[in-house]
Amino acid sequence: MTISFSLQGSSGTARAGTITTPHGPIHTPIFMPVGTQATVKGLTPDMVTAAGAEIVLGNTYHLTLRPGDELIRDLGGLHKFMNWQKPILTDSGGYQVFSLAQQRKITDAGAKFKSHIDGRTLELTPEKAVEIQENLGSDIAMVLDECPPADGTPEVQRNAVRRSLLWAERCQKHHTRADQAQFAIVQGGLDYELRRECAEPLVAMGFPGYALGGFSVGEAPEKMHAALPACAALLPAHKPRYLMGVGTPRDLLIAIGAGLDMFDCVMPTRSGRNALAFTSTGPVRLRNAKHRRDPASLMSDCACYCCANFSRAYLHHLFHTEEMLGPTLLSLHNIAFYLQLMREARMAILADDYTEFARSRLAALQVPN
Amino acid sequence: MTISFSLQGSSGTARAGTITTPHGPIHTPIFMPVGTQATVKGLTPDMVTAAGAEIVLGNTYHLTLRPGDELIRDLGGLHKFMNWQKPILTDSGGYQVFSLAQQRKITDAGAKFKSHIDGRTLELTPEKAVEIQENLGSDIAMVLDECPPADGTPEVQRNAVRRSLLWAERCQKHHTRADQAQFAIVQGGLDYELRRECAEPLVAMGFPGYALGGFSVGEAPEKMHAALPACAALLPAHKPRYLMGVGTPRDLLIAIGAGLDMFDCVMPTRSGRNALAFTSTGPVRLRNAKHRRDPASLMSDCACYCCANFSRAYLHHLFHTEEMLGPTLLSLHNIAFYLQLMREARMAILADDYTEFARSRLAALQVPN
Repeated sequence: MTISFSLQGSSGTARAGTITTPHGPIHTPIFMPVGTQATVKGLTPDMVTAAGAEIVLGNTYHLTLRPGDELIRDLGGLHKFMNWQKPILTDSGGYQVFSLAQQRKITDAGAKFKSHIDGRTLELTPEKAVEIQENLGSDIAMVLDECPPADGTPEVQRNAVRRSLLWAERCQKHHTRADQAQFAIVQGGLDYELRRECAEPLVAMGFPGYALGGFSVGEAPEKMHAALPACAALLPAHKPRYLMGVGTPRDLLIAIGAGLDMFDCVMPTRSGRNALAFTSTGPVRLRNAKHRRDPASLMSDCACYCCANFSRAYLHHLFHTEEMLGPTLLSLHNIAFYLQLMREARMAILADDYTEFARSRLAALQVPN
Repeated sequence: MTISFSLQGSSGTARAGTITTPHGPIHTPIFMPVGTQATVKGLTPDMVTAAGAEIVLGNTYHLTLRPGDELIRDLGGLHKFMNWQKPILTDSGGYQVFSLAQQRKITDAGAKFKSHIDGRTLELTPEKAVEIQENLGSDIAMVLDECPPADGTPEVQRNAVRRSLLWAERCQKHHTRADQAQFAIVQGGLDYELRRECAEPLVAMGFPGYALGGFSVGEAPEKMHAALPACAALLPAHKPRYLMGVGTPRDLLIAIGAGLDMFDCVMPTRSGRNALAFTSTGPVRLRNAKHRRDPASLMSDCACYCCANFSRAYLHHLFHTEEMLGPTLLSLHNIAFYLQLMREARMAILADDYTEFARSRLAALQVPN
């Protein structure tokens, strides 16, 4: 198998493992910074590495539109193109077809839609999603799935599960690259029975890893938190479990406790660009006037380049004057903070102390800043 | 004296020297990246250092508007505020009052104007310009001057010289900080006699360094090139000579030959943000479609982080998709290129081979890219 997964410890249902990939190891639980268009927005690969990242995401939908997956293949693949030598996971583009594309028409054959960039008509089939990701050359590729919004009717959810299963089979059949692992995606919304009906056949198909899709798509966080333990338990214990598109530090602490291993979210970079920093005592809004004269670092116990070198007053100034360095420094800190949280969670799991760790960290997140 | 200047060599009228400041040495000829608002746009201080910078500029006008020079003083000065531990030069704000401020009214007393940010009425007198720069704590401060446009009438030019002399005296008298050197500015446009009338009394006043202002303010580059040798010769040989706000790589090669030592310009960073890269064979426009599939680095004999790690195809993609990393990488390269050019010029001067060096580099700049 292209990737392997070993468990080093557990604490309750929380797990500490290692995913071995063609581009090196990933220590779980892990947060994966999002590099939608072959760049983690505002950061050089050196900065992403310095922030502690072991894997980044690439985006099939965006990269096939610009610059094109065949161009990336011809130039030596996504790792070389974006100068990122550690592992890369690519999503299948399904989520973006549902959230970004215009005039989309979904049938069992695939998705037809117009590009949100230039209106070109494009088609994304399960086979095409596999081919694009093989061109990109990611270490982990995702099957094409249908990801309905949280308020989709039971009928919509059932059809998404049926279609996602159909597409997963076609993706598995079409996949050829020996140096790339293909992960399956479980849909089913907040309906446990539907999740089970989706997970069981996928598990029987023997994918090297499994994801929970269709969370954080509009439902209240508490509903997701409540659903995660049972849904995670549907996935094989000896394979990596990936919760897609989630979430806040709170979401991650709860999801790790439920037995999930991998996470991605645009939140740390998008919030960073908008002057919102994550810290161990909750969010800090750097545009707030109270930071104008504050010589303190953003977070006293953070070793990232931003916290080691700059004051809140300086960060406030950068956002106040719309300087590019503000979004860069805060994106860097937020990713470093997420990854530091993952490392600490891993240590707590290895010490079999995760419940207490999560309890105290969740309590600290409520301290007003 | 706060700073000292020593000459290590010369080649014709070109000079290689060292300026010693409270924050370390500067090897001349030197290009100074512009950090208008306490940040070199798009770059971390680590990147500016890696690009080879030995000194950066700060801007009195911008920093007194936001965040305020007293705030910067209270937080430990500009070096600490922006986390730049090498030398800083601050301009006096005169140029910005003339180019940016609204409803300005200039008298011998000083300049009254409205802020271009929020319309506040402000006053900049020679004394105030000194106080602001002492609050900022730069290693080198500039006197307040009047900088007329190139098409200013002889009357306008004469009055600017008269007023700049008056203001230089008041600046010198008001200056108190022992750890800061104050440089004088020679105005006079393209009229040599006027330049001489401005330079002679300033030289008699014994400033530790001298600048030529009022160049690159709308005149044809050739007119500036022709005027520089005689104007540079008006300045003391044993003190640093600074050509303000200039220029292209071609301008710098010619100005070094004329005997100038220090340069600043927004061009490398501003052009970098707009997808224009400087190289030894002339400018490269990365938005141009011909770079779409080009696996070559931007400049083969450049060791900067951009050229060492990314292809022209990737840079084209970053600008095409409006990713922040494009402006960052090209600003970094452009500054590294300017500073590499300065180091090579210095070596050529020390080898007493500057004329041939400049001739071959100027010829190479014409090669189409």
